[in-house]
Amino acid sequence: MKVVPSDLEIAQAHKMIPITEIAGSIGLGEDDIDLYGKYKAKINLDVLRKFNDKPLGKLIDITAITPTPLGEGKTVTTIGLTQGLGKIGKQVITTLRQPPWDRFSALKGGCRRRLRQVVPMEDINIHFTGDIHAVEAANNLLSAMIDTSILLGNPLNIDPMTVMWNRVLDTNDRALRDIVIGLGGKENGYPRQTSFDMAVASEVMAILALAENLHDLRRRLGRIIVAYTYDGKPVTAEDLKAAGAMTVMMKEALKPNLVQTLEGQACIMHAGPFANIAHGNNSVLADKIALRLADYVVTESGFGSDLGMEKFMNIKCRQSGLRPSCVVITCTIRALKMHGGLGNVVAGKPLPEELTRENLPALAKGCANLAHHIQVASYFGVPVVVSINRFTPDTDAEVALVREKAMEAGALGAYPITVWADGGEGAVELAEAVVAACEKPADFQLLYPDNISIKEKIEILATRVYNADGVVYEPLAERKIKQFEDLGLGHLPICMAKTHLSISHDPSMKGRPGNYIFPIRDIRASVGAGFLYPLAGAMRTMPGLGSKPAAHNVDIDEYGRTVGLF
Amino acid sequence: MKVVPSDLEIAQAHKMIPITEIAGSIGLGEDDIDLYGKYKAKINLDVLRKFNDKPLGKLIDITAITPTPLGEGKTVTTIGLTQGLGKIGKQVITTLRQPPWDRFSALKGGCRRRLRQVVPMEDINIHFTGDIHAVEAANNLLSAMIDTSILLGNPLNIDPMTVMWNRVLDTNDRALRDIVIGLGGKENGYPRQTSFDMAVASEVMAILALAENLHDLRRRLGRIIVAYTYDGKPVTAEDLKAAGAMTVMMKEALKPNLVQTLEGQACIMHAGPFANIAHGNNSVLADKIALRLADYVVTESGFGSDLGMEKFMNIKCRQSGLRPSCVVITCTIRALKMHGGLGNVVAGKPLPEELTRENLPALAKGCANLAHHIQVASYFGVPVVVSINRFTPDTDAEVALVREKAMEAGALGAYPITVWADGGEGAVELAEAVVAACEKPADFQLLYPDNISIKEKIEILATRVYNADGVVYEPLAERKIKQFEDLGLGHLPICMAKTHLSISHDPSMKGRPGNYIFPIRDIRASVGAGFLYPLAGAMRTMPGLGSKPAAHNVDIDEYGRTVGLF
Repeated sequence: MKVVPSDLEIAQAHKMIPITEIAGSIGLGEDDIDLYGKYKAKINLDVLRKFNDKPLGKLIDITAITPTPLGEGKTVTTIGLTQGLGKIGKQVITTLRQPPWDRFSALKGGCRRRLRQVVPMEDINIHFTGDIHAVEAANNLLSAMIDTSILLGNPLNIDPMTVMWNRVLDTNDRALRDIVIGLGGKENGYPRQTSFDMAVASEVMAILALAENLHDLRRRLGRIIVAYTYDGKPVTAEDLKAAGAMTVMMKEALKPNLVQTLEGQACIMHAGPFANIAHGNNSVLADKIALRLADYVVTESGFGSDLGMEKFMNIKCRQSGLRPSCVVITCTIRALKMHGGLGNVVAGKPLPEELTRENLPALAKGCANLAHHIQVASYFGVPVVVSINRFTPDTDAEVALVREKAMEAGALGAYPITVWADGGEGAVELAEAVVAACEKPADFQLLYPDNISIKEKIEILATRVYNADGVVYEPLAERKIKQFEDLGLGHLPICMAKTHLSISHDPSMKGRPGNYIFPIRDIRASVGAGFLYPLAGAMRTMPGLGSKPAAHNVDIDEYGRTVGLF
Repeated sequence: MKVVPSDLEIAQAHKMIPITEIAGSIGLGEDDIDLYGKYKAKINLDVLRKFNDKPLGKLIDITAITPTPLGEGKTVTTIGLTQGLGKIGKQVITTLRQPPWDRFSALKGGCRRRLRQVVPMEDINIHFTGDIHAVEAANNLLSAMIDTSILLGNPLNIDPMTVMWNRVLDTNDRALRDIVIGLGGKENGYPRQTSFDMAVASEVMAILALAENLHDLRRRLGRIIVAYTYDGKPVTAEDLKAAGAMTVMMKEALKPNLVQTLEGQACIMHAGPFANIAHGNNSVLADKIALRLADYVVTESGFGSDLGMEKFMNIKCRQSGLRPSCVVITCTIRALKMHGGLGNVVAGKPLPEELTRENLPALAKGCANLAHHIQVASYFGVPVVVSINRFTPDTDAEVALVREKAMEAGALGAYPITVWADGGEGAVELAEAVVAACEKPADFQLLYPDNISIKEKIEILATRVYNADGVVYEPLAERKIKQFEDLGLGHLPICMAKTHLSISHDPSMKGRPGNYIFPIRDIRASVGAGFLYPLAGAMRTMPGLGSKPAAHNVDIDEYGRTVGLF
């Protein structure tokens, strides 16, 4: 039996290449980067001007079927495909989101996004280059300026009951979900009820991921709506004179970070917005820089094609002009069997035994989920390849069945990968298929234009992407849709906040749900990021620690080395 | 008239030397440092072992008289003396505290510590190398673990009413001074009233400044007392299994940061604990490394000799074995005249006109304050030199008078410096005097031994350092002194939390107050840092923004350069 060591052991045992050499391998010199230690660097934004004449590479987006709470190996596939492309001699860069470092304190065996195979792993998973801290600090300066403005004369006439800008922390702290601030008398403020969110849930993080340059960052931060006046007018970060200072706090964070895969390939890791209340993709700047430096750029969007990939297309590509050449949909046979009606996958518990035995009828049924995700990707006119993240119990007959169903649904092919055990060698076939797909003529199109109504946009998403029969709006959502149309925000794209555990709004509806009505509870505006986000359910924006958080196991050993991190 | 440009303009116009060259100038090679961009680096702790055989340099502590709210130029003197020592051919390093970056949002013209003449100024005053963020994150992980432990079964039997570990943020946010957390039901926690402090007020910051190495950091974090059980036993970070994870979060922060003065000298900037509830000095590690690399190390302690310098001696030197060769007391003639009964200095307002005219009688009277600080420094058996931070209105007769009074009180000499206008050239005479003082035999001694009672220690400080006739304890303080003695904490040194605007506890008592009783309201324990801190008044641990915070003026210009920061 093959014993696979822990992620941290792999990373610590690994001999990293100096990041100056990694930079050199993609054409960046000493003046193009700022070192953060020997194995991390920030890329100066001047690089975009410098390489402006170089042809753009091919952009490949990695998405997934509807995952189980364990995740189906999307990041493994992303890194594996990057390594596979390297093996077949292609010049390739992967662009990833930065993991939130709540990882550090999250439940062991929990469902949080794990980042393997990119190093220096310890750094990446802790402070990295400080970008999340910068997001937090800029967010919280704005918060302090709101409450101070209300307290000291309220010159902007802010109605305190309308303040919707939360403070943020990068700690999983459930006690801060619902708090009262400003107690203790007139030195401290007017008491009001509010919340802390995770730092990565901040609109500032979504802005970081979408900004084209420093001036665009400045304008976007200024557009953030934080509250309304007593007569219903929006109050922005610009009105509060906060946006300039926030921009200065974010200057370094705006520069993408260069690290490396375990096989010594360049990885640009930058920004990490949520894929429910935000758009769930790494930064526009990282992709644009990578596309000037490599022939192939492999990026990853959050959750399934109904969330991160749809937002990659309708928000990130719409705003930035980026155009993908291929979409890769990741699946696992265990998850497809779950979609076929078997088992109940719970984070932190062993996999139900029935998911590890061959069951072709259940698998065939579950492939309806895969087929739907292929269809969603196809709406955008981009070639689709399926990647099967293959585990030891998966049989050849099961793999063949998934391939057959994928091709029926319009995928160019479906390829098993064994990256978790074999590294890039386990993704060579997939890499070859992706190269071929990138040569196909792509006919990129958005799913909806800017100039239709908010409800029309939501209805297109609900019926085509979530396979619903229609949409029902709660009164709050109705009222706010009207308010946003009246404020002239109707042109913004939609960033749906819904569960990732179903194509629908209901995590219990597996496979390919249909014949249901999609419910909209509320809708909010991230005007700086440039989208509206309707809520189809309660979205948790501040996780909690469990009774045995991962932090219990983290320590230094007698030599000062970190242990217990993964 | 000489026009002195703004600090930011000076710093931006200045051509910095690559930090690798600065490192080389003090004997550090590429493997001894980790770059953070081109002009900042972290120094690896292995350097201490590597240079273990090199003789130790001379350690010079810069302190001050009782300042006005404007400050009297202690940091200017520190940097100026460093530059002056360089001018006379000495090998010198300055070791400084990192400024809290609340600077960014503080009142313009306010009383916060300003950091001039060390570059890269913008970086240093914003995120720098992330150390304060690491302090914040480690502090807040512990907070989340406390409330989660109470909520999920309370296995440690913590009495929620005794939790004294506050969350921290590095934002001036008055609305967080007094809050209720844990609302919203059983998913979120038991509601309780608590506070956010500034990050630099965290015991974690004091620990960072006092830790000798990574293992000592680990042990100190474990000793932090966060609450008591229902039966009165202390609950520590170790009990909560938080200390290992906190240590891992602080690993990078423990490495001192290398930057440079405007004259291209090495500056090691590391840690920045408050000088009231904490000990107000830069890190032990920074000093110990600097002493192996240079013949002279110039460091600065917070506020006057009654606060930062006394704690430098009785806490930092006691714990670490560091021994100073000379103390420099900074004064200004305007402040001494204020101590002589003139004017009322208010931050953000113009200086009262009477302070800018020659007034020898008032100055002579005010010199009692200087004389007392000289006396306090002399208690420790270390030679004392006085530095007069000279401004344009100061007359030669005034300077001569201060020198006379300083020599009478036991200083070796008193030297005017004009560093604010002339750089290092303005401190050559002071530098020569300091070199001579360092050759004097020093007979270092602590003010009290470990093994006397808490009250005896407090009474020694009150009568000798604060010139009081005695001490009065409120019932709360009486009770807690007994509790700490019972818990076996009586051996710890005392870190008095009192105003910096008077030698006494009362900011309105100028000059050399006497014939009064020093009041102790409360006493708290920082067991990880290794001191007890009695409170002689209300100490603000979370500043607020004003109606016109500095952030209003901070922005980027059309070229993306930062403007309005200072």
